[in-house]
Amino acid sequence: MTAPELVSKSRCFHGEVHKYMHQSTATQSKMTFNIYLPDAALTGKEKVPVLYYLSGLTCNEDNMITKGGALAHLSKHQIALVTPDTSPRSCGIPGESDDWELGTGAGFYVDATQEKWSRHYNMYTYVHQELQDLVKEHFAVDALRTSVFGHSMGGHGALMLALRNPGHYRSVSGFAPICHPSTSEWGRKQFTEYLGKDEELWARYDATELVKQYEGERLPILIDQGADDPFYKSKQLQPSHFVIATESSRRNVVLENRVQPGYDHSYWFVQSFMESHIEFHAKHLKQ
Amino acid sequence: MTAPELVSKSRCFHGEVHKYMHQSTATQSKMTFNIYLPDAALTGKEKVPVLYYLSGLTCNEDNMITKGGALAHLSKHQIALVTPDTSPRSCGIPGESDDWELGTGAGFYVDATQEKWSRHYNMYTYVHQELQDLVKEHFAVDALRTSVFGHSMGGHGALMLALRNPGHYRSVSGFAPICHPSTSEWGRKQFTEYLGKDEELWARYDATELVKQYEGERLPILIDQGADDPFYKSKQLQPSHFVIATESSRRNVVLENRVQPGYDHSYWFVQSFMESHIEFHAKHLKQ
Repeated sequence: MTAPELVSKSRCFHGEVHKYMHQSTATQSKMTFNIYLPDAALTGKEKVPVLYYLSGLTCNEDNMITKGGALAHLSKHQIALVTPDTSPRSCGIPGESDDWELGTGAGFYVDATQEKWSRHYNMYTYVHQELQDLVKEHFAVDALRTSVFGHSMGGHGALMLALRNPGHYRSVSGFAPICHPSTSEWGRKQFTEYLGKDEELWARYDATELVKQYEGERLPILIDQGADDPFYKSKQLQPSHFVIATESSRRNVVLENRVQPGYDHSYWFVQSFMESHIEFHAKHLKQ
Repeated sequence: MTAPELVSKSRCFHGEVHKYMHQSTATQSKMTFNIYLPDAALTGKEKVPVLYYLSGLTCNEDNMITKGGALAHLSKHQIALVTPDTSPRSCGIPGESDDWELGTGAGFYVDATQEKWSRHYNMYTYVHQELQDLVKEHFAVDALRTSVFGHSMGGHGALMLALRNPGHYRSVSGFAPICHPSTSEWGRKQFTEYLGKDEELWARYDATELVKQYEGERLPILIDQGADDPFYKSKQLQPSHFVIATESSRRNVVLENRVQPGYDHSYWFVQSFMESHIEFHAKHLKQ
């Protein structure tokens, strides 16, 4: 595996934020990501746990790490953070950037099966496998202590990754995650485009469907949802479907689901609850 | 005074962030600013202290409030934050947006005397007077408890405002402030353009010159400077000039000046020390 190319680095909260670019096999394109490394990992003195954060529609690798207010808390707990991009870019696919809900900035963390997208849009393999292999090889992180979280489309990605891969992630959390994409417009639209019409295949990328079947190791889950989020009101997110599926399945998941009065869908909401999400992951990553 | 027009609002950290637009008398243009109000101020239950933050070159009213990580700490201390823009915009002045160091995004917090700029570029009066009058009239802030801070060009603005107006600001702080603008390229270039060649007039906007003459009330000052900041290395910022002027003047200022190894000029640096700046101001605003 070729080493990723350093684009920039800055000191921040007793550690460093690095931006890298690399040629991805999974997406057959250049991909960028940021990584925050606390000093212990920079000096190579010890391997630190690692948190992956998946962003939402229209976002890239920068939104959360610049606006999420996470680094103070990661520094305190000596945890690394990796923020990948939300899709490949500039692949030359006709119309790839014409619709903010599809293509560029909207990879939805699936491996596309439809010819138009399948060469490049393999964000599931990219985020779950290729990127994590690369991070493990090049940085002082302890891959056995990995957790994942995300916002909106990225919250869907985080829940789905954790439920499909029991034992791989210690904990998972979401800020306003899309919880039942097979039944909401955000989800049906993209699954149809990337995966075609086979709804059995969709179910493999749907947190609410996956949790019904979950038989893996004990998985702690935290969800925060703003009560004044317009996408919550228009039923794009549907955390209640996920809550019901979790309760009825009686599987080995421990869900804390919170609705926060007055908060919307923005990073003003995300940053307000960042500390408690990082405390949650820290507890499980340090066990 | 006409009420400012609400552009957007979001709940954040047990309070709200509002963006407003208003027609400014000082700059004869539309101006925008953000304000964070903790719940106590929103319900009108009590008037809270207020912090003004002045941004640097190329920035606008959004940079710090989205990337500075300040709101968690302001919420804890129940302090309001106001973030003005860094200049008027779209005034129709020839070439106003051609140079990132002049005009748009580069108001330098002076009242311009030169004909090309003097109608609109009156950021000193705008920030120190008009905006503060407007905030006092329309929001539940206690204007007797006001402090100011800023970054780079905004750090210059903050120091200069506090030193020119003894007793008005309880405390002042800067992240990598331009400390001696009459002797650095950042400063000489803009002062020449906005104020002409009269260096006696420049001295009224220069923190190092002002502190030599300071005879006002006791003024606590905090400065953080990243040791790997390229603008520090190229002598655009010159905190040492300010330190020496403060020591030799033996005036009524209490300066804490810190150089932070490894940090650069970016918001990665600013956010790393935000908590300690807000703790500093909180101490003086609550006395």
